[in-house]
Amino acid sequence: MAKLLEGKQVTAALKAKQQEAVALLKAKGITPALAIIRVGEREDDIAYEKGAVKRCESVGVDVRVMTLPAGASQEELLALIDRVNRDASIHGVLLFRPLPEHMDDEDVRNALAPEKDIDGIGDSSLAGVFAGTKKGFAPCTAQACIEILDYYGYELKGKRVTVIGRSLVIGKPVAMMLMERHATVTVCHTRTIDMHNICRAAEILIVAAGRAGIVGKEFFSPGQVVIDVGINFDAEGRMCGDADFAAAEPIVEAITPVPGGVGTVTTSVLAGNVITAAQRGNGA
Amino acid sequence: MAKLLEGKQVTAALKAKQQEAVALLKAKGITPALAIIRVGEREDDIAYEKGAVKRCESVGVDVRVMTLPAGASQEELLALIDRVNRDASIHGVLLFRPLPEHMDDEDVRNALAPEKDIDGIGDSSLAGVFAGTKKGFAPCTAQACIEILDYYGYELKGKRVTVIGRSLVIGKPVAMMLMERHATVTVCHTRTIDMHNICRAAEILIVAAGRAGIVGKEFFSPGQVVIDVGINFDAEGRMCGDADFAAAEPIVEAITPVPGGVGTVTTSVLAGNVITAAQRGNGA
Repeated sequence: MAKLLEGKQVTAALKAKQQEAVALLKAKGITPALAIIRVGEREDDIAYEKGAVKRCESVGVDVRVMTLPAGASQEELLALIDRVNRDASIHGVLLFRPLPEHMDDEDVRNALAPEKDIDGIGDSSLAGVFAGTKKGFAPCTAQACIEILDYYGYELKGKRVTVIGRSLVIGKPVAMMLMERHATVTVCHTRTIDMHNICRAAEILIVAAGRAGIVGKEFFSPGQVVIDVGINFDAEGRMCGDADFAAAEPIVEAITPVPGGVGTVTTSVLAGNVITAAQRGNGA
Repeated sequence: MAKLLEGKQVTAALKAKQQEAVALLKAKGITPALAIIRVGEREDDIAYEKGAVKRCESVGVDVRVMTLPAGASQEELLALIDRVNRDASIHGVLLFRPLPEHMDDEDVRNALAPEKDIDGIGDSSLAGVFAGTKKGFAPCTAQACIEILDYYGYELKGKRVTVIGRSLVIGKPVAMMLMERHATVTVCHTRTIDMHNICRAAEILIVAAGRAGIVGKEFFSPGQVVIDVGINFDAEGRMCGDADFAAAEPIVEAITPVPGGVGTVTTSVLAGNVITAAQRGNGA
C-alpha cells in the first residue's frame, strides 16, 4: 500500500501562507489581481478557469476573466494583452494556450510583460527556468510537482529522478528545477529505448507522458515516489493519470492520486505566483 | 585502441561549406563580420580570440576586435554594445565573460541584439535552446559537440547520453540539444551519487566537469563514445581534458583528444554562426 500524496494537504498549507501574505498586501492597499485571458470556449480551459477563480478567491486574490471569440484576430488579442500589461492593478496574467491556429504563439506569449507572466510562458521566464535564476516564474504545473515533493519532505539533492515527457510546460521545466535542487535527472520521451528500466532505476518518477495508463507495472520499483502529472479520462469517463495507479500502488512507496494530486496544487501555485508578482511590484 | 575523433576533420568539412556560403554572400555585396568585445586582458580570452580571428579570416569572415580596460564602467560597455547592435555591417558579436565583478552580467548579456548573439548568451537565445526552436543561436561549444557526433556519423536518436556538468555554456544547452535530437539524456553534476555507474551506462558520454582528469577508468565502458569538453593544464603545463585519456583509450570505442577535439571545432561553429546571421539578416 503506497502512501497517497494528496494535493489537498499541500494546498491547505500553501493557502495559509498565501492568506497571510494577502493580508499584508491589503494592509498596504494592494489587492493582488489575476487577469485570465481566454480565446474561445474550450472545455478544458473553462474547467481550469473555474478552479483557478475559486482558488484565487479563497485566498483573497482578485480575478478578472477576459474573453475573446475563437475567431478574434491576433491584433485584438495583442491589444488586450497590452491593456493588461499597462494596468497597474493587475499583477499576473494567465493566457490559455494553445491559441487558435491563425495566431503566432511566439509573438503572443512574448507580448506579455515578463513581470506579469505568472505561468512562465514568455522567453524571459523560460530563460530564467533554464538558467536557474529566481527571476520570472516557472510554469505552475512544474512548480506544483516540486511543492508536493517538498511538502511531503522528500529530499531532492543527489536523488535519481526520471521525468517522462519533454514538453515545455512540464517535462523540460521540471527537469531543470529538479537539477537546480541538485537531483540527477534523466528525461525520457517517445524515442527512449528501454524506458521501463530507466524508470525503474529512478528514486523519484515524474510522469508527464500525456497518455492514459501508458506507464505500467514494469516502470515501477519498491521505494519509489511517483508524481503523476497526467489528466485523462478513461472509457467510463472517469478522470485518470498517465500512470497505471492500480499497478503502481502495491509496488511504490508513494504516489499522487489523479484526481486529487498535482492538478489540485497547480491552481494554488498560480494564486501564489500572483501574490509574489504583487509583492515584487510593490517592493514588499 | 579507441578511434580518435579529431576536430580538424570536422573543421575542414565545415570550412568548405562556410567558404561557399561566404562566396555567395560576397557576390551580393555582403561580407559577414564578427565583432569581438573583450573587457580586460585575460589570457584565456586572448588565446581564444586569436584562434577565433584566424578561423574567421580563413573562411572570409571579417573580424573587428573591440577592447575596453578591465576598469571600464558598465555604461561604457553598454554604449559599445549599442553601437555594435546598430552597425548594419556587423552580423555577430562575441562578448567574453565572465565580466568584471562590478558589472551586472544579466543586464549586459541581454543588451546584445538577439539576432547578433552568435554565442547564445542572451535570454532570447537561452529560451530558444530550451524550447528547441531554431531561432537564435546555441552556445558554440555545445554546438561543437553535436557537430563532432554528426560528422563522425553517430546516431543520436534513442541513444542514452550522459552529460557531466550543468553549466549554462555547455552542460545544460548540450543536454537540451541532444534531447531535441531524440537522445535520452541524463545530467550529472557535483551532487550526483554513484556517478561512475550512471556514466558507464551511457552510450555517449559528454564530459564537461571543468576539472582535469576527474573522469577516470571507472566511468568508461566498451562501445562508448566520449566527447571531452574540458580544457585544463597539467602539472607539466600540457593541455589536457576532463577525462583521463590514457584510462579511457583502451576501453571506449571513440574519444575526442584534448587538444585537437572540441576546442578546435568551437571557433568553426562561431564562424558558421556569423555567416548564418549574415544570411538571415539579408534574407539569403
